[in-house]
Amino acid sequence: MVGYSFMGAAHSQGWRTAGRVFDLPRTPYMAALCGRDSVAVRQAASRLGWAATETDWRKLITRDDVSLVDICTPGNSHAEIAIAALEAGKHVLCEKPLANTVEEAEAMVAAAEAARARGQLAMVGFNYRRVPALALARQMVAEGRIGTLRHLRVTYLQDWLVDPEFPLAWRLRKEAAGSGALGDLGAHIVDLGQHLAGELLAGVSAQIATFVTERPLPEDPTARGAVTVDDAAVFTGRFASGALASFEASRMAAGRKNSLRIELNGDRGSLAFDLERLNELQFHDQTEPAAHSGFRRILVTEEQHPYLSAWWPPGHGLGYEHTFVHQASDLVRAIAEERQPQPSFADGLQVQRVLAAVEESAHSDCVYTPLVHEPTQSSQSTEPTAAAG
Amino acid sequence: MVGYSFMGAAHSQGWRTAGRVFDLPRTPYMAALCGRDSVAVRQAASRLGWAATETDWRKLITRDDVSLVDICTPGNSHAEIAIAALEAGKHVLCEKPLANTVEEAEAMVAAAEAARARGQLAMVGFNYRRVPALALARQMVAEGRIGTLRHLRVTYLQDWLVDPEFPLAWRLRKEAAGSGALGDLGAHIVDLGQHLAGELLAGVSAQIATFVTERPLPEDPTARGAVTVDDAAVFTGRFASGALASFEASRMAAGRKNSLRIELNGDRGSLAFDLERLNELQFHDQTEPAAHSGFRRILVTEEQHPYLSAWWPPGHGLGYEHTFVHQASDLVRAIAEERQPQPSFADGLQVQRVLAAVEESAHSDCVYTPLVHEPTQSSQSTEPTAAAG
Amino acid sequence: MVGYSFMGAAHSQGWRTAGRVFDLPRTPYMAALCGRDSVAVRQAASRLGWAATETDWRKLITRDDVSLVDICTPGNSHAEIAIAALEAGKHVLCEKPLANTVEEAEAMVAAAEAARARGQLAMVGFNYRRVPALALARQMVAEGRIGTLRHLRVTYLQDWLVDPEFPLAWRLRKEAAGSGALGDLGAHIVDLGQHLAGELLAGVSAQIATFVTERPLPEDPTARGAVTVDDAAVFTGRFASGALASFEASRMAAGRKNSLRIELNGDRGSLAFDLERLNELQFHDQTEPAAHSGFRRILVTEEQHPYLSAWWPPGHGLGYEHTFVHQASDLVRAIAEERQPQPSFADGLQVQRVLAAVEESAHSDCVYTPLVHEPTQSSQSTEPTAAAG
Amino acid sequence: MVGYSFMGAAHSQGWRTAGRVFDLPRTPYMAALCGRDSVAVRQAASRLGWAATETDWRKLITRDDVSLVDICTPGNSHAEIAIAALEAGKHVLCEKPLANTVEEAEAMVAAAEAARARGQLAMVGFNYRRVPALALARQMVAEGRIGTLRHLRVTYLQDWLVDPEFPLAWRLRKEAAGSGALGDLGAHIVDLGQHLAGELLAGVSAQIATFVTERPLPEDPTARGAVTVDDAAVFTGRFASGALASFEASRMAAGRKNSLRIELNGDRGSLAFDLERLNELQFHDQTEPAAHSGFRRILVTEEQHPYLSAWWPPGHGLGYEHTFVHQASDLVRAIAEERQPQPSFADGLQVQRVLAAVEESAHSDCVYTPLVHEPTQSSQSTEPTAAAG
Repeated sequence: MVGYSFMGAAHSQGWRTAGRVFDLPRTPYMAALCGRDSVAVRQAASRLGWAATETDWRKLITRDDVSLVDICTPGNSHAEIAIAALEAGKHVLCEKPLANTVEEAEAMVAAAEAARARGQLAMVGFNYRRVPALALARQMVAEGRIGTLRHLRVTYLQDWLVDPEFPLAWRLRKEAAGSGALGDLGAHIVDLGQHLAGELLAGVSAQIATFVTERPLPEDPTARGAVTVDDAAVFTGRFASGALASFEASRMAAGRKNSLRIELNGDRGSLAFDLERLNELQFHDQTEPAAHSGFRRILVTEEQHPYLSAWWPPGHGLGYEHTFVHQASDLVRAIAEERQPQPSFADGLQVQRVLAAVEESAHSDCVYTPLVHEPTQSSQSTEPTAAAG
Repeated sequence: MVGYSFMGAAHSQGWRTAGRVFDLPRTPYMAALCGRDSVAVRQAASRLGWAATETDWRKLITRDDVSLVDICTPGNSHAEIAIAALEAGKHVLCEKPLANTVEEAEAMVAAAEAARARGQLAMVGFNYRRVPALALARQMVAEGRIGTLRHLRVTYLQDWLVDPEFPLAWRLRKEAAGSGALGDLGAHIVDLGQHLAGELLAGVSAQIATFVTERPLPEDPTARGAVTVDDAAVFTGRFASGALASFEASRMAAGRKNSLRIELNGDRGSLAFDLERLNELQFHDQTEPAAHSGFRRILVTEEQHPYLSAWWPPGHGLGYEHTFVHQASDLVRAIAEERQPQPSFADGLQVQRVLAAVEESAHSDCVYTPLVHEPTQSSQSTEPTAAAG
Repeated sequence: MVGYSFMGAAHSQGWRTAGRVFDLPRTPYMAALCGRDSVAVRQAASRLGWAATETDWRKLITRDDVSLVDICTPGNSHAEIAIAALEAGKHVLCEKPLANTVEEAEAMVAAAEAARARGQLAMVGFNYRRVPALALARQMVAEGRIGTLRHLRVTYLQDWLVDPEFPLAWRLRKEAAGSGALGDLGAHIVDLGQHLAGELLAGVSAQIATFVTERPLPEDPTARGAVTVDDAAVFTGRFASGALASFEASRMAAGRKNSLRIELNGDRGSLAFDLERLNELQFHDQTEPAAHSGFRRILVTEEQHPYLSAWWPPGHGLGYEHTFVHQASDLVRAIAEERQPQPSFADGLQVQRVLAAVEESAHSDCVYTPLVHEPTQSSQSTEPTAAAG
Repeated sequence: MVGYSFMGAAHSQGWRTAGRVFDLPRTPYMAALCGRDSVAVRQAASRLGWAATETDWRKLITRDDVSLVDICTPGNSHAEIAIAALEAGKHVLCEKPLANTVEEAEAMVAAAEAARARGQLAMVGFNYRRVPALALARQMVAEGRIGTLRHLRVTYLQDWLVDPEFPLAWRLRKEAAGSGALGDLGAHIVDLGQHLAGELLAGVSAQIATFVTERPLPEDPTARGAVTVDDAAVFTGRFASGALASFEASRMAAGRKNSLRIELNGDRGSLAFDLERLNELQFHDQTEPAAHSGFRRILVTEEQHPYLSAWWPPGHGLGYEHTFVHQASDLVRAIAEERQPQPSFADGLQVQRVLAAVEESAHSDCVYTPLVHEPTQSSQSTEPTAAAG
């Protein structure tokens, strides 16, 4: 694994736990952790449970005891590491967003396709697909429980930038982060929205805003520097089927800590979800008699639910990092079965293209910006492993 | 009053009850009800409590025992009746939307301004401003409790058109209704959003859709006719202050019966409301210590809350039609005090202009469509009477 | 009507509105209001819409234009007025609790039975049975939707006595009020619990408490007097069927304004309700597949729901005082059809006996105190009028 | 560790993870797992991450590489193993309930006190104290945020016995399980209720019931055997301070999966919690102005909250098994610091006494059954380690 901060810790928890909970065809071995600071990386490896350390990712990807490289670094290094790792004959798991630009993402997809011919597999880490309630929602959509989609609305709201004295971290500088709330939160909701809908966006119209344009420098709090990424993005979209979509990503929504809310309305029913209550899925069945119908709160903790048979009895809820356990488990199985894991790099590229269209529309008076989809491998299918224990 | 269906019944409940609950300077007398069918209007008058009937609104507006004309007819007759009533020296209450076109609405504003010089007052019936929880929200915004606005998001979702066999009622024909969900539901949320924000939209970008394009004819269910209005509208907006707004109005959101949800995020706090739980207001105070803060559910039934001192003890909630009691009460007071009641016809016109811009943008590839505001009477002030018992 | 404070105002709203909303076989005429203070009663009559006034209830009950006497006075005068009114040949509606003692209630039942033979009808005002969501709950229990009852739990929590400086009002003196939270709130939940369960309690075990034992005198806030009623009562019960019940009534539950919560668990499903969200009923169907089941929130505003066809479109909620409109409407119909209205005085007496057993148990170390039920008229049937428009 | 089913898996997750997340003074080493079936225990050890196995707990407790024995067996073996392990010089963690009888629990407390003099520490596993929201609730009560307690109400509802065809598992036989819902769920809520209140119950009055008295035998589903434990228990209690308490434990509450709900009402505020939404704590501050007050939902995921600084960013919720990570972490620290960990065996004994009094009352017509508390070590103090990262 490369990188060991927030995402690195979460992925480590996933690798460490997957084989303890799920019956896996292969047992993950946490071979080596890589980071530039040799002291810090050794401390992190000891804490997180990695057997060895490296300070140069180029050495990591050539180790004989490494068959899979998990990339948890900032987005601007994803392409280089992933392409090199694939070329070195390793499987790759890459954190989202796949890259900071469409061009990088395209190169990564090309590398992944070439690698696949050699037996190497690549996956992008949109972990929220593996929240059991959202995996269940995907199943229910696929089964026709909501019928023909009319509306999708998704918001992903946080509030850690409300305070204007929050410093100008690297995430607020375009050269490092690519974009702001859009790339960080927007990438999640574009992927999730399309995944749950089971179809891709045909075009978008967008507005973006930066509300606090200068912030204290981390290195010198008495000085201020320019914020060069967005604080928030609001956009609408249209699916090829004609369904309407609305999206909002913000780091400035006071009181909303991690509020990824998604709702789908179809002509046979509706589904609703809030990440702040991640063990619950709301479902309305429009085919029931009006007198007794209403949104029901499914507590997604039954053994019939995706991933749940491996965990605890009904009502004993899971948390955020379980998504990384599920991700690790699903990836190990896909590798053992020589199947393409979902979501693929191509899925990650498609999300990147939507984000690029959002920025283009926002800089062009919100004009509707169509998306062209290449006829690639369909990746919107539900994975067969989702419900296995 | 002209008209006696859904809105007529609701307004009658308002007129009948206002003086029984609030201490009013004048006692409303329900002089006459007007409708074209003489038998039906007599039955309605008897049921709803009106002393006399008319079958021609031109006669109604000249009656000596009528000092106020309440217009509850479809939108395409608003302008003619309202202008004539004002010219006949009557005060006027006109249901929303003010008119079906900007031109009609402009003529109505001109008539209202002329009438005002003669002492006649005109008001448009955006009744949701008088839900106590929303009146409280307006107070709190005005007091600075949420600080500088960053985000407004409002949805108004219903589901009565999900069934494709629902007939082609007049509300689904452009010539009668003007527009669909946009004019009916969108008018409410544009007014409310701006009213709560305390500022006007600078421009919008929009998509509209008609999902079911043909429906059975009411007069002959074996035949089908074209739906000529929208089923849903999704639009984003921007305030002059830079705050972002998103709006969605739909009659196709399965399971959402009357779900007008509104949320405002500012740099000092947030407010959230759902019309399906109209006695509650959610408030987050961003200035509190993080360890103990969170959205609180204010049960808006205390005597300190707007309108509540006239009603029941704490926790004994109000319903939908109470908004019409409050509207009647506020209007009677404004007339007695010779004050301009809120919202004015000018407010109604401004909403109409936003709706027109939404349609224009939707027909122009979602391009951002700016709004020009004339320097008229400010009408975004909170009314002094809101909290009185 | 006798009495014109909180309950008098609520009942007046009911009488004034019932015929305006429901198709009634007879039109209520609000003949006369009675109160001891002639000036105050005249003001109240004018405000609330009564045609005449009386200062002596003995004169009221002999008026020729009065056929029904509605008693809204404190509990210690109910028996005398109700018995005299029935003997004077009037129908009677009496607010709950039926009386302050079992003995008075027994005398009232005897008078009601004698009067019924002469064609006069008597009803006690447990208005919460007529919240549409609770009427729906009763229907669903009767239809077997929850199967065999296992658990009933009901709490009725308010907080207006949390402040120790709240004065020693008459409601806190035993000689006037009979009891405290028990008679006021407990009467409601005992009636509702048994009504929804469709069976009567076989016995109870109880604790009661007075947390603030002295309060300022209203007439002299510098002096204090003893609180002689309970602040709270907690009791368990058992139905003849073996189902377990728990009850709690309190005026000392900080933050709970009017929180009447009720839940029934059966072997086929469960129902849950909260008066602070009175337009909603929660229902869980245990017979559904586990993967998709959960408590659903039925928004009880559809025309198929009890009382709703007379009101507004779906999602346009009702409020507290609508229960009094429904009560007036149901009573007028029962009188016109010469049927016994529900709940009867016998139902009121049975509730009184439960409350007496609660006090007896609380004063006897919580010992289980059985209830003996006389073989009287069954009153647990659902009224046929409940769903009519 | 002895035992490796549900609780064994949960404790293993705790031991495996604690040192990966928290900075601990000592690193847990998972030395050996013990179970009677040598094949099964070896499989479990491999899966759960234990280095060795034993088939006789008497051998386990004498191993040199074992310094702490974690007991996850059924309740009837707790006393024997715990006492022997303490006498063998090991620290002990024992799952709840401490024992099946008061006598066994008393012997365990005596053994723990003797062991403590030698430096061995003993703890009982009431893991819910370590849900961050409940640890925060305890802090807030201790800080006086709710003032003087008036009411405690706790329910713990499950529904896995609603189906009458659920087999007669060992948990439904008194000889093995001691009691039913009372010992399993009731133990948790008695401990939690007293822990949060910060005081002990003075007495209880109780009803218990077994609704389904015969069930299919696991070994022969065509035959039926008698259920010899309770399905549900409902009881009320009183604290020495005069505060009232109500408790309900049931395995027959259709639709309630793991619904441990707790509410405390004091004269300065209230707290409410539901285990099905374990990242949330509801708080009402009675000292705030009525116009803006209400129950607030604190999302207990901020770094200021107990245990949270070691986990994820705000809004990224935890799950059920995190309580075992916290339990392991707190115990390791207590051992390193030679402090008595909380809750102690004496706390477990006191809970056992309450459960015994509940059964006694239920068998004696619900009569109030007082509890005598011995002057032992206070164990209601908040642990200093709760908030550490």
